[in-house]
Amino acid sequence: MTDRFIDLNSDLGEGYGAWRMADDPAMLEIVSSANIACGAHAGDPVVMAETLALAAARGVSPGAHVGYPDRAGFGRRPVQMSLQELELHTLAQLGALAALADAAGHRLTHANFHGALGNLSFADADVARVLIGAIRQFDRDLAFVGLPHTEAAMQAERQGLRLVGSFLADRAYTPQARLVARGQPGAVIHDASTVAARIRRVLTEGTVQAIDGTVIALPVESILIHSDTPGAPALAALIRDSVAAAGFGVRSFAPSRGSDIPPRNAGA
Amino acid sequence: MTDRFIDLNSDLGEGYGAWRMADDPAMLEIVSSANIACGAHAGDPVVMAETLALAAARGVSPGAHVGYPDRAGFGRRPVQMSLQELELHTLAQLGALAALADAAGHRLTHANFHGALGNLSFADADVARVLIGAIRQFDRDLAFVGLPHTEAAMQAERQGLRLVGSFLADRAYTPQARLVARGQPGAVIHDASTVAARIRRVLTEGTVQAIDGTVIALPVESILIHSDTPGAPALAALIRDSVAAAGFGVRSFAPSRGSDIPPRNAGA
Amino acid sequence: MTDRFIDLNSDLGEGYGAWRMADDPAMLEIVSSANIACGAHAGDPVVMAETLALAAARGVSPGAHVGYPDRAGFGRRPVQMSLQELELHTLAQLGALAALADAAGHRLTHANFHGALGNLSFADADVARVLIGAIRQFDRDLAFVGLPHTEAAMQAERQGLRLVGSFLADRAYTPQARLVARGQPGAVIHDASTVAARIRRVLTEGTVQAIDGTVIALPVESILIHSDTPGAPALAALIRDSVAAAGFGVRSFAPSRGSDIPPRNAGA
Amino acid sequence: MTDRFIDLNSDLGEGYGAWRMADDPAMLEIVSSANIACGAHAGDPVVMAETLALAAARGVSPGAHVGYPDRAGFGRRPVQMSLQELELHTLAQLGALAALADAAGHRLTHANFHGALGNLSFADADVARVLIGAIRQFDRDLAFVGLPHTEAAMQAERQGLRLVGSFLADRAYTPQARLVARGQPGAVIHDASTVAARIRRVLTEGTVQAIDGTVIALPVESILIHSDTPGAPALAALIRDSVAAAGFGVRSFAPSRGSDIPPRNAGA
Repeated sequence: MTDRFIDLNSDLGEGYGAWRMADDPAMLEIVSSANIACGAHAGDPVVMAETLALAAARGVSPGAHVGYPDRAGFGRRPVQMSLQELELHTLAQLGALAALADAAGHRLTHANFHGALGNLSFADADVARVLIGAIRQFDRDLAFVGLPHTEAAMQAERQGLRLVGSFLADRAYTPQARLVARGQPGAVIHDASTVAARIRRVLTEGTVQAIDGTVIALPVESILIHSDTPGAPALAALIRDSVAAAGFGVRSFAPSRGSDIPPRNAGA
Repeated sequence: MTDRFIDLNSDLGEGYGAWRMADDPAMLEIVSSANIACGAHAGDPVVMAETLALAAARGVSPGAHVGYPDRAGFGRRPVQMSLQELELHTLAQLGALAALADAAGHRLTHANFHGALGNLSFADADVARVLIGAIRQFDRDLAFVGLPHTEAAMQAERQGLRLVGSFLADRAYTPQARLVARGQPGAVIHDASTVAARIRRVLTEGTVQAIDGTVIALPVESILIHSDTPGAPALAALIRDSVAAAGFGVRSFAPSRGSDIPPRNAGA
Repeated sequence: MTDRFIDLNSDLGEGYGAWRMADDPAMLEIVSSANIACGAHAGDPVVMAETLALAAARGVSPGAHVGYPDRAGFGRRPVQMSLQELELHTLAQLGALAALADAAGHRLTHANFHGALGNLSFADADVARVLIGAIRQFDRDLAFVGLPHTEAAMQAERQGLRLVGSFLADRAYTPQARLVARGQPGAVIHDASTVAARIRRVLTEGTVQAIDGTVIALPVESILIHSDTPGAPALAALIRDSVAAAGFGVRSFAPSRGSDIPPRNAGA
Repeated sequence: MTDRFIDLNSDLGEGYGAWRMADDPAMLEIVSSANIACGAHAGDPVVMAETLALAAARGVSPGAHVGYPDRAGFGRRPVQMSLQELELHTLAQLGALAALADAAGHRLTHANFHGALGNLSFADADVARVLIGAIRQFDRDLAFVGLPHTEAAMQAERQGLRLVGSFLADRAYTPQARLVARGQPGAVIHDASTVAARIRRVLTEGTVQAIDGTVIALPVESILIHSDTPGAPALAALIRDSVAAAGFGVRSFAPSRGSDIPPRNAGA
């Protein structure tokens, strides 16, 4: 039996009305934390509540996946918004999801940013400061789950939020620990044994080899499992098996928050 | 100098993006509490935050005005939703507005329901139970501002929410203390002196004469000021003058909540 | 070789942004006419154009599937709209889809109504008159594909639109040739051999046995294939096989319109 | 009596549901052509039909004002869309407005692009080619009303669309006949006598003095009247008076298209 654990996180609750995106019930059998869309790029109160309930039933830690208010673009394209607009939209999304979680007796454990907003939060220091500041303003006990060494990660540390480093096993890294952009050659790693080796390495040594060969330190507590890309289930199974082969169990980075922190109105 | 006071409430923050509905700054000079749209039938995070800030600057008590998720219909037409859907949408709207209020250092004082959802909350016992239950679940310190003797008002009392009875000075009442529907003859009272007399009566005697002549008890702590109907400014002025003529001052039903209740994270 | 043919129609193009509903490419291998969502209950210009192109590539007749402007409800719940609003929304949806079709060199062959609007068009004479009138006003060469004997079907005949009677093989009929509502016992027929027998009967005798045993005449030129209900592929295969077993081929009710009618601007 | 005429155009029909933007009835007393929102950045079928009817009642030429599909941003911010997406959205918007116009017996006279999409159509040759191409594909008898010498104007000429040059009386021009960006010093001309002099000059000499003093030829057949900026009514009156003072009457660039071109289905 192992005594070493890693969290697996995935983006879920990305339906809207009658539409569904990933096979959430299947994904929730694999992951230990869920980044749940908050009604902006995807999700609506019914989908959000269903996803929270499914996650709770499986002991999966629920988090807020904040995105651009752009359903037509699924949050994947940048929206020209001021820093203040980004802050207000983040607060409103956090508030909506937290209200649904509170009412059902769950507590959010973390937050992060979806798609084009996530990319911006990694690359732009001002945006990172404001977005992380909105999370902290809303609930300073939320962890930020994201890529280490990015602007958002640095802001989380600076502002006193717990940083849960997340790893993308099938994506190449620059020597600066950023993701190589999808258009670039070698950006996506398709070879299963390479993916497995990278998982073993990051888990056991805490490093990743960048695209130019540089070895960089990558402190990770979680691995991201894609939910809706082609080949997602196969990649998910590969990651799960690689984690097990490395001698690790799967456990949320925040397994018990749901039980030992009282809900908002408990003392009132 | 008077020592008797009445609250004046109005529906505000009903813009969306570049659109605005009422002249909110002007209305906020008149009223003492504001029912603020929560992003469903109207409002978006920017409009919500602006309205909260304007209200706070004038000492106006901010409340959540929950509506059907139907911008195209402005919440004025019924949407076929299950009780569970109504509950979840109410929670999400409350959470969004409260998050913006908390972040700016304000506290919501009350909640109520807009348009077709408001009408349903007055008439349907099951809907009233669920909607009032969602407010209570979210924050049991919120008052419910609404028409006395309705299903929603009775649920507020049953579930232990403070009920702030609201009066519509220009609308006829049935002997059962419900509003006469707009289509009916005599439903809207246009004569200024009649409106003034009704305000004096409800303030000093706590009664209103129903459309059939019956005198009914109407315990009110607030008068609703329309914000966006034709003639709204004139009616607002008439109500304000009638209140003064009756020897009453204008003051929020909850003037001090903002200062003596700590924001959500204050103790963390 | 057969010389008898039946059209198979299905509701397609029901995606929105990144979301997809049915497996449209698979369905387009089976059907001969497609009811394409027009951007209101589902669809957007990209999805609409993609679906039109896929249909054209397979010789499938493209039609407009007009629905309530309610993405959140997928057009499945009634929206309170005036007759004039229904007319204007129908025209705008037809215009949007036809513009995309014209630009790609295709011609729409038919139109009908989705979900709750479809149900209303079958049951309400005034609504049927206005909706069918909007189709006729837009393009009197469009066929109306729908249930025979309904208000919409009668209006199509009255207003001079070609009526293409459509049959639902797995749904029980009332003696008045309306569908038994889904909640009722026996409304949905699950037994494969019964479905097959009903298809044979309607194709060869032009009749269906109603739920009370009455035999009613049902002039049909098409059979509806569900695209997105559970068991849709199995039912589709069953219908296709039953049609073949009855000695019928599958062919659009309007196989050649695309080629022999010039596009809108051809003569200008 | 004058025998020289100029068109005045304005952006109208920019409401949505219960919201309105400008005072359209007042503007329609001033202008001779209207750029009508098509349901994407603003407008819905009801607003579109109302605006078409108001315009027709006053003899104002109706045109399609195509914008980004972004109600929350009112089409004022860029949306990341491919050339193909831009083409399809333009077609769908043109189709929707034209269907409503046709059904009411009106004919669209022109089209142009709103806000951020308009700016892009002036500056980007590829975008201009695709957008103008979509107008031409839809209806080659539509004029393009826009700024002379821009990419869109050049494409209109290249693709054989009638170009109706439009003049902004209160905006400074670069020596290349582009607008000086709003942020720049001197971009907006506030002095009434200067505006009046510029109108006289462009009408009588066909030139404008650029911000650096260069005199540039500016062939214009229309002057844009802002509908919704602060001071719009005052500027509108100033423009109208300046036009009259220059000895010009106001008349649509396409006064008679409505009457002498048969509607789409007339001959069928």
